[in-house]
This record gives sequence, structure tokens and C-alpha cells, in this order.
Amino acid sequence: MATQKLAGWALSLKYSDLPQSVRHAALRSTYNYLGCAIYGSAHPAVTKAHNALEPFFGKSTSSLLGHRGSGRVDAQHAALLNGIASHVHDYDDTHLETIIHPTGPVASALLAFAEYRGSTSGEDFLLALTVGIEAECKVGLAVWPSHYDIGWHITSTVGSIGAAVAVGKLMGLGREALQHAIGIAAVQVTGLREMFGSDTKSFHPGRAAQSGLLAALLAEKGYTSSLEALEAKRGWANVVVGGGQPQLDKYLAELGSVWEIEKNAFKPFPCGIVCHPVIDACIKIHNTWKVRGKDPKLELQDKKVDARVHPLVIELTSKRLPRDGLEGKFSVYHGAAVGLLLGKAGPAQYEDEIVRDAAIIKVRDSIEAISHQDIRSNEAVVRVLGDEILEMRVEHAIGSVEVPMSDKQLTEKFIDQVSLFWKGSAASEASKRCWQLASLQDIADLARAI
Amino acid sequence: MATQKLAGWALSLKYSDLPQSVRHAALRSTYNYLGCAIYGSAHPAVTKAHNALEPFFGKSTSSLLGHRGSGRVDAQHAALLNGIASHVHDYDDTHLETIIHPTGPVASALLAFAEYRGSTSGEDFLLALTVGIEAECKVGLAVWPSHYDIGWHITSTVGSIGAAVAVGKLMGLGREALQHAIGIAAVQVTGLREMFGSDTKSFHPGRAAQSGLLAALLAEKGYTSSLEALEAKRGWANVVVGGGQPQLDKYLAELGSVWEIEKNAFKPFPCGIVCHPVIDACIKIHNTWKVRGKDPKLELQDKKVDARVHPLVIELTSKRLPRDGLEGKFSVYHGAAVGLLLGKAGPAQYEDEIVRDAAIIKVRDSIEAISHQDIRSNEAVVRVLGDEILEMRVEHAIGSVEVPMSDKQLTEKFIDQVSLFWKGSAASEASKRCWQLASLQDIADLARAI
Repeated sequence: MATQKLAGWALSLKYSDLPQSVRHAALRSTYNYLGCAIYGSAHPAVTKAHNALEPFFGKSTSSLLGHRGSGRVDAQHAALLNGIASHVHDYDDTHLETIIHPTGPVASALLAFAEYRGSTSGEDFLLALTVGIEAECKVGLAVWPSHYDIGWHITSTVGSIGAAVAVGKLMGLGREALQHAIGIAAVQVTGLREMFGSDTKSFHPGRAAQSGLLAALLAEKGYTSSLEALEAKRGWANVVVGGGQPQLDKYLAELGSVWEIEKNAFKPFPCGIVCHPVIDACIKIHNTWKVRGKDPKLELQDKKVDARVHPLVIELTSKRLPRDGLEGKFSVYHGAAVGLLLGKAGPAQYEDEIVRDAAIIKVRDSIEAISHQDIRSNEAVVRVLGDEILEMRVEHAIGSVEVPMSDKQLTEKFIDQVSLFWKGSAASEASKRCWQLASLQDIADLARAI
Repeated sequence: MATQKLAGWALSLKYSDLPQSVRHAALRSTYNYLGCAIYGSAHPAVTKAHNALEPFFGKSTSSLLGHRGSGRVDAQHAALLNGIASHVHDYDDTHLETIIHPTGPVASALLAFAEYRGSTSGEDFLLALTVGIEAECKVGLAVWPSHYDIGWHITSTVGSIGAAVAVGKLMGLGREALQHAIGIAAVQVTGLREMFGSDTKSFHPGRAAQSGLLAALLAEKGYTSSLEALEAKRGWANVVVGGGQPQLDKYLAELGSVWEIEKNAFKPFPCGIVCHPVIDACIKIHNTWKVRGKDPKLELQDKKVDARVHPLVIELTSKRLPRDGLEGKFSVYHGAAVGLLLGKAGPAQYEDEIVRDAAIIKVRDSIEAISHQDIRSNEAVVRVLGDEILEMRVEHAIGSVEVPMSDKQLTEKFIDQVSLFWKGSAASEASKRCWQLASLQDIADLARAI
């Protein structure tokens, strides 16, 4: 009954049923998604995919984010390309319990479809997004962690299901048709962890968005599947769980009482999550100096810096001599240096020229990172060593469940990303429009504007 | 090195390297595919998918088989829809060792791409088809049988890889690019056995064709993946094997020495393979009467018939009172009746009106099928009981490895399918053109003609 239960719940939910906190979580997830997809839209992986697929584009109905209305394609390709863009910088959201990046697959399918079909209000969009994200996270929890451990990229393997539920909800499918849509989505299991580090990693959520959209479109025209696609003996959960028993009933029983979208977390820095606590501490040191009227550059002059960190930081991000922006993302030293000297570690601080800047390199070379078993993955202690020692301890890095990014910080993240391309007030205007999404009569107006 | 080995082998192979028997096997596989796809093109599942996707069709470059040039769509949708059509009647080919239906995913991608790109000779087509089929069957063997046992529909899970190799070969990709294409195809794992009995079963090979084509198109523009997609610890084989150890090296070592395409078998009757021996025996009885100048109808008058069969025949196809063509496919009694009375069991003999025909029903009701442990799955013994007993034993059913369908029988199968739609000499003319495929300058001419 899992497939039926999921479909029934998704279809019965109304916007008025959503607690205010859930509505706001849906808005924050969408807002963060839009900024990431705009930022990602100029990435070479997206350009390559665009070039490869341009000969096959159908009728232009749906916007490619980041193109401000000039790049419209058919809904299926919009779902794919926006999905790639949303994930390509690894700067998107994270459902921390499962490491699912939930919004990319669902929002990419939903936005492309909403623009194609027309007349989707902001509230309808947020409601459909919410049911899609709940669907993918619940089925993800049901197969976690063995599914991920064996090698599936869970973001996309559950993403097609979430996207199908979201689009099916917006279409107003009947319950059986939505069960069929879930089935058609469930047979398209996309994403292997082996692809991490290549363009195909970001293909995964893009293809999941496209597959979920396709599933809903087919089901709408009566294409049939199994009505027990998730729970059957040879259905999705048993086949993909990768050992152990799936727990569909347990997690689907919590639909509408435990909201997964409320647990969605956002990355403050566009680099591996393990070095976020150090960067957070370094920015706090920078801000302390500023408050005291001191110049960080002078404060760092001839000083040594040390950082006590969780062992994974050294294991994953200990690149001492990063040569460009991409390598900078794997250097806790670069992240700490821009934090200390510039008080920021956004996309602009990971541009090639910043990584190669002499002043940054000088600070970077003064930093030592020391692996400590006692430091939690969420924690860091940074010291600036001089006549007096300035110590900053971060218990929970910004962006964690304990210290979520504020709306203001999300806004800063959005603007930092978008203003890399759009000059003047365009970035802040886009931000304002995105925050007002819930009150839109037609979400297509927003999609075209950005 | 499995991915590299497969890519290197596929790219180095020339048409002149192919033994004559392999060339002919490729031609037979293509010929059978074309007949099945034309027959399937009018099936409701194809119509539903066509209706759902029509709003997204891109530039019309590639033919929908069965439409004789009037139905052209973009290459990606042609691959999907022809792939669905080829499998939708369960009448396509079978690599018996793995139960892979190998031609559908590969040929559907290849034909759609060849027409889009233009100027593909018949020989180039057959060469690319061969490398695609070898690729999918070898990687399928490497994960067989645990992969299928756990619930994957192996035709499509390996089909995307075969399609990518075939299209990549035709594109003339470099070796690394083809490895990337294999990787992008390998992450798109489509197909669950739970969907058997629904429209989604035939969606599987269609989507596999489309996914493999997409993979090659992306790789052609430099989209990257893993170079060890098949063999890596968290790569395709280890993730999808479903228990046990994949045997990639073992089977890939046999590339070019053991040809899987030569083992490809073709179904003589459009129903479950388990009742083929009984039908074969019944047609042989009918033919015996005809040779002796006797009227089968009179010979069957007031006679009882019994058939000793493998237990699976009773388990899977024992529908005593089939009400329409689809139910007729699950009735060994109907199959035996049309074999005895009409001497044929082609698509026309599974039309609704034949299943409901009084004379057929009368014979059907006179037949008893008896499960025997000693009868092999490939074997049947049928007796017509009267004053004298006429017994026919089939050791190996027609269409098996031991008794493959002849080219003449394949031609009859093709014409039986195609003449359901095309009147006059159109079917036999189409058949003739398809058999001459190897000598074509451009395969597109054939695709448009049928």
C-alpha cells in the first residue's frame, strides 16, 4: 500500500494544510534553488549539455534559468538543463539525514512544467514542491543508508519519484494515475557515486527531473505501470535498497507529521561541507577585528594561524597549493585565508584570480590545519598566534541544523552568486522577486524574468 | 580496464572483421526488429506515449516505424517510441542465455541517430548494431543471473549501454569519449520486472534506447563521466549485480571470439515462449494432414487431443476461457487450437475475433494439457486421440537455439505482422527492402519507406 498511500496523501494535501514553517521552508528551498541554478547556468558542464541537445529542442515554452527570458526551450530539456545547473557547483541544499539534495530534481521538473502548462500560482508551486520533496525524502529514508553505501547517488535515484509526484500533483492526476506516474518514475533509477568528480554527477539530478516529468506526462495520457511500484517484491525499494530491509511503511506513516522539507539545510560556502566550520570561525575573527576598528590585513601581518579540525578536513581538503578556483574548493587553507582577510567565502572568493592573488597566498601559507580526534565534524577552533592569541571556537558551523542560515544570509548567498553575471541592481531585484514567489499569480512570470 | 577494453574493441572493429555468419545474424536481428516495430507501432501503449510526448517533439529528422514516412520526429523521441513499439507485443528477439531482448534498445537508438546525422550505409549500420549488441550482452552476462533475479529488467538495464556503444561507434567517437558515453549510459539504469504486464514493460527498452543515444550525444560534446564506469568499486556492475561478483573480465575477454549476436533467437509465435513447443507440434500435425490431403477440420471432429508439457506451461499459460487476443496469449489451449485447425499461430491468429470464433473454441475445448516433470521446457508431445492415435513429438521448438527460424520463416513472420496494416503487395515489398539493408547507401531511405 506504500505507493497508494503516498499518492493519496500527495493529492489530498492543500496549501492551507501546510504549517507556516513548512511554507517558509518551501520558499527558502525554492529561493536557494533559483540562486544556485542561475549561478550554475554558465558552468561548462551546462554549456556542453546545451550544445549537445540544442538540435533536439522542441517548442520553446520553458525558461532556462540565468538567461532572463532569452533562453527558452521545451519543458523536458528545461528540466534537464536547469537540474544540471542547480547542482553543478555543489552549492545546493542538503537533507542532512540522507544527503539528498532535494530541491533540484523536483523544482526543475515543476518549473519547466508549470511554465509549459501555464497559470500556476506561487502557492500551487510551493504546495507541489513540498509534496515532491516529502515524497523523495521519505522514500530515500526508507532505503538509507544501504542504498547510498552500495553506490547509488541518492539525490537522483529518489529525485525522479519526487519530481513525478510534484508534477502529478500540479496536473491534478487522479490517485491511480499518480500511482502509475510513481511507477514510471521508479523504473528510471539514475545516478552512481562513481561519477562524483565528473560532469555526470550534475547530470544525475537533471535527468531525474526530466524522468519524473516524463513519468507524469505519460501517466496523464493513461500509460500504465504497477500500482505497487515502490513496495512490491520486485519493486523499487527491494531492488535498490542494496541490502537490508526497506522501511517504507515506517517513514510514509510520518507524512504530514514529520516534515522533511523543514530539515533542509543550505550551504553558506561553495566548497566541501567539511571545511565550513573553519571558514565560519575565520569570518567571525575577521568580523571581530572589524567591530574593533582594526584592519584584518595588518592584524595578520607576520602572524601564524592554526586551526584544530576534524580529521576528514585534512583527508578531503588539504590542498596546500591550489592553482585555480576548483582546486581552491579542496583547500581548507584557501577557505580560511579568504575568511580571515576578506570576511567572505562566496563564489567570488573562489574565482581563479582570487586563488592566485599574492595577498591571499601569503595568508594561506601562514595557516596550519591540525587534525584532532576530539573535534566534531561540525566544529573548529582557529587561533591567530601573536603577542596575544585570538581564539575562535565554532561549535556548530553556519548552515547546520543547529545554526541554519538566516533569510538574510540566504539573500547574501543568492546575490553573491547572481551578481557574478548581472551587474547593477539586477541581482537584488531578482532576489526580491524570488522572495515574493508565494504571492505570484503565475510562476512563469518569475521564471522568464530570471 | 573493462570500460576501456569495451570501448577500444568497439572502435577498432571493422565490417570486414565480421564473419559472414555474424553479418547475417545482424541482418536477421535488424529484419526481425523492423517487423516487430512496425507491428507494434499501432499498439495503444505506443499511441498513448505518442500523444503524451507530441507537444515536446523537436525537429522532424527521424522516422517512426510503421508510418511509412508520414511520422517523423526528433531523434530522441524516435528512439523512445520505436523502442516501445519493438517490444510491446513481446514478439521481439531473445538472447536466450540472459533473456535480454537485444535489438530493440540498440537499433532504435541507432536508426534514429543514423537518420538524423545522415549518410549511414547499411554496412555501417550493421557494424554498429553488432558492437552494441555484443556490448549489452557481454555486460549482461557479467551480472547474470543475480541481476535479473533481484528484479531488474535486464533488457533495458544493459540496453542503454549497448545503445551508447552503437551510437558512439557510428559517431566515430575517440576511445575516451566512448568510455564517457558508456559511463553516462551506465548511470541511467532503467527497468524493473515488477512492471511486467503493464505498459511500462515496453517503456523500458524505449527509454534505454533514448538514454544510450543521449549519453553518446553528451559525450560527443565533451561531457565527462568516469573512465571506469563499469568496473569501479561503486560503478555499474558492482551496484546493479544484486549479490555475488560481476564477471566483466571473463566475458569481455571473449569479445570478437564468442559472438552473442549469433545466439540471438526469434519468436515464431506472439505468445509466451513456454507454449511454443505445443504450438509447433500442433502446426506439424496440421501440416501432416495437409500433406496427406486431409482436412484438419474433419480430422478434429469429435476427437480429443492431449498434450504432455513442461510444468511451467500449466503454471503460466493455462487460461481455459480466453476472452480476447491478449488473454489468448496466456492460453496454451488457444495456441494449440489455432495450430491444429489453421496451421498458423501468428499475430492474426491472436486477434480478438479468432479467439472468440466458435470453430476455434470447439477445438480448444477438446484439448487437455498435462504437466509432466520429464518433459523439457523446449519439448512437447501432442496426441490426437481417435481410432488411431496421431502423435507428434517436438524435441526442440522452432525458434530455439537448436532449431532456429529460417530466413523464410522470419520472412513469413514479418509479412504476417506487417500485412495486418498494409494491404496489397506493400508488406512483401517492405520485406524485400529490409532484407537488402546491407547494400544500402543510406539507411534513412529504408527507414522512411517503412
